[in-house]
Amino acid sequence: MGLLETTKEKIFPQDSEARDHAKARLDNLALPHWSLGDLMDMAIELAGMTQTVTPKIRKKAIVTMAGDHGVVAEGVSKFPSEVTPQMVYNFVRGGAGINALCRQAKADVFVVDMGVASDLSELATAGKIIDKKIGFGTNNIAVGPAMSDAMARKAIEAGIDVANTLSKEYDLFGTGDMGIGNTTPSTAIAAVCTGKDVAELTGRGTGLNDEQLQHKMNIVRKSIEVNKPDPKNGLDILAKVGGFEIGGIAGLIIGAAANRKPVLVDGFISTAGALVAYKIEPFIRDYLIFSHRSVEPGHKHMQELLGCKKPLLDLNFRLGEGTGAALAMNIVEASIAVLTEVLTFEEAAVAGADK
Amino acid sequence: MGLLETTKEKIFPQDSEARDHAKARLDNLALPHWSLGDLMDMAIELAGMTQTVTPKIRKKAIVTMAGDHGVVAEGVSKFPSEVTPQMVYNFVRGGAGINALCRQAKADVFVVDMGVASDLSELATAGKIIDKKIGFGTNNIAVGPAMSDAMARKAIEAGIDVANTLSKEYDLFGTGDMGIGNTTPSTAIAAVCTGKDVAELTGRGTGLNDEQLQHKMNIVRKSIEVNKPDPKNGLDILAKVGGFEIGGIAGLIIGAAANRKPVLVDGFISTAGALVAYKIEPFIRDYLIFSHRSVEPGHKHMQELLGCKKPLLDLNFRLGEGTGAALAMNIVEASIAVLTEVLTFEEAAVAGADK
Repeated sequence: MGLLETTKEKIFPQDSEARDHAKARLDNLALPHWSLGDLMDMAIELAGMTQTVTPKIRKKAIVTMAGDHGVVAEGVSKFPSEVTPQMVYNFVRGGAGINALCRQAKADVFVVDMGVASDLSELATAGKIIDKKIGFGTNNIAVGPAMSDAMARKAIEAGIDVANTLSKEYDLFGTGDMGIGNTTPSTAIAAVCTGKDVAELTGRGTGLNDEQLQHKMNIVRKSIEVNKPDPKNGLDILAKVGGFEIGGIAGLIIGAAANRKPVLVDGFISTAGALVAYKIEPFIRDYLIFSHRSVEPGHKHMQELLGCKKPLLDLNFRLGEGTGAALAMNIVEASIAVLTEVLTFEEAAVAGADK
Repeated sequence: MGLLETTKEKIFPQDSEARDHAKARLDNLALPHWSLGDLMDMAIELAGMTQTVTPKIRKKAIVTMAGDHGVVAEGVSKFPSEVTPQMVYNFVRGGAGINALCRQAKADVFVVDMGVASDLSELATAGKIIDKKIGFGTNNIAVGPAMSDAMARKAIEAGIDVANTLSKEYDLFGTGDMGIGNTTPSTAIAAVCTGKDVAELTGRGTGLNDEQLQHKMNIVRKSIEVNKPDPKNGLDILAKVGGFEIGGIAGLIIGAAANRKPVLVDGFISTAGALVAYKIEPFIRDYLIFSHRSVEPGHKHMQELLGCKKPLLDLNFRLGEGTGAALAMNIVEASIAVLTEVLTFEEAAVAGADK
């Protein structure tokens, strides 16, 4: 058995006893019943994930997976592929959106080279990024599969490996992505998994006009027609219409679930990774927290397929990098604080409500 | 001139030059244009409030104003008035929702006795609460005014005084409330200010059933009929159908605006305080940030009247205490981090989008 199979065997549903105990405590907190709404709902989930009514978060990690996409040759993005490595350098110097939001949330950023089409060995050797490079960008999905089956598995296992290593110190994960062109494969994944029409799912990415948007839809449709991914097979979907960083995100999620660590899913690309992970191992869903709703129109449908009715934030983000997940880490911490720090009516000597 | 008048004279609109400079920088950040959406909109506001493109938040304060309400005699709340002082003690020992969320947000909680119907001098003497007691609870608004005009002014000026004192060290304020029965006066304020029907505005507060809700609506209507508050006069509205803690919140907001400090408005009761402040001095609106949307049905209408289309959070909170404001402080900090820490395309040496 490979790392993927042994990891899948370690993934279990949430712990129902911890959930029940958390609910019992929350029901008795010295406040009008359930008046901290969604924070209290999430506290039950967190107890179930971590198997305790006193979850602790020692350190928090955003893992930003970077990769390039052959489909950029079709003109699906406003930005050239060179921006992917340029942004990796920006992450390393601390000047990007994800760095700013992680400093606010007191989270660490880990940048993983999953398949950037440039030599980043200088950064890897200096320990500034994690080197899991599967290739120098994927192939153009408009004409054939993004990668081989073996590469898809390798990408997933790279993500699992990152999760396993970080789980020794980190108790809360957030996913992130960087890859010029990656809304195109993510839209293809969304279409394959949800069965919805490509027109309902495709967005403007980094800022396409109407004509460019129409072209992008055509490319997404073509990528599915040419490759015919099996909607039931996560590895096949990843290999046919995915991306290296999307595979890394899927692996990170699978690895986090196996380590019973909650994982905040960022935006559109991260949710495509979550869908791939879900198709590989449905129980990962028990470890997901949905951080925000992206401006990309497909995001809502993808989240719904994964059981998310309403994400934590809705602030018109469409950046990726892990920015929504980083900001939402504060809300996860607040949820744990409610569960573990607020006193009950009895503990606080406060009179209850009339029956 | 009294403190209220001298304070009003210090309130100016946002600084348009700082807003323009902030917008110019945000337009050039190395990310797809405006892809951090609402955080970027808010960054412009924060620059305008603080007159700088590099706003700094040294310390953050939640000010939880406490007071009791004579109208509780009409049976409008599930909880007895004794819970107000009991919760003040809970705040002081650090066991309430607001304490947990402030620890997460690294904010300090200041509890102000604006008019609790119990002797809290022990806590005040020990420096654990701020003593601004105007009276031992308001009068029953179903039969006459909540307080005299002089008391209304005194309540507002107490809030201003707290804001002036804290402004020496604190750069971000959040409002909070504690007062059994206070959704009833707040609903009356909402009805007077918005002109909407009481049935559209009245909620279940801490958990009323259908019959109790109907009774509460009748009491709100009666309080308006009996007292006939002048919808254009904030002090009159406060005196006729308000509360001591609501006046304190209004004063805190007026004082924060005079000190050019952003102030996060919490939930239903805090927004009633903001409406009173707005009726006294419309320019305070330039210093408000709306933290969340409460479950109370009137909240949306009150926020819209104050120019808020969408608050930062929507997590089904209905607790008060300042809990929504505390959680949203993280988002305000994130907004400032985007403005002041993210590099531009030029600074980060990242290629821009195709035109």
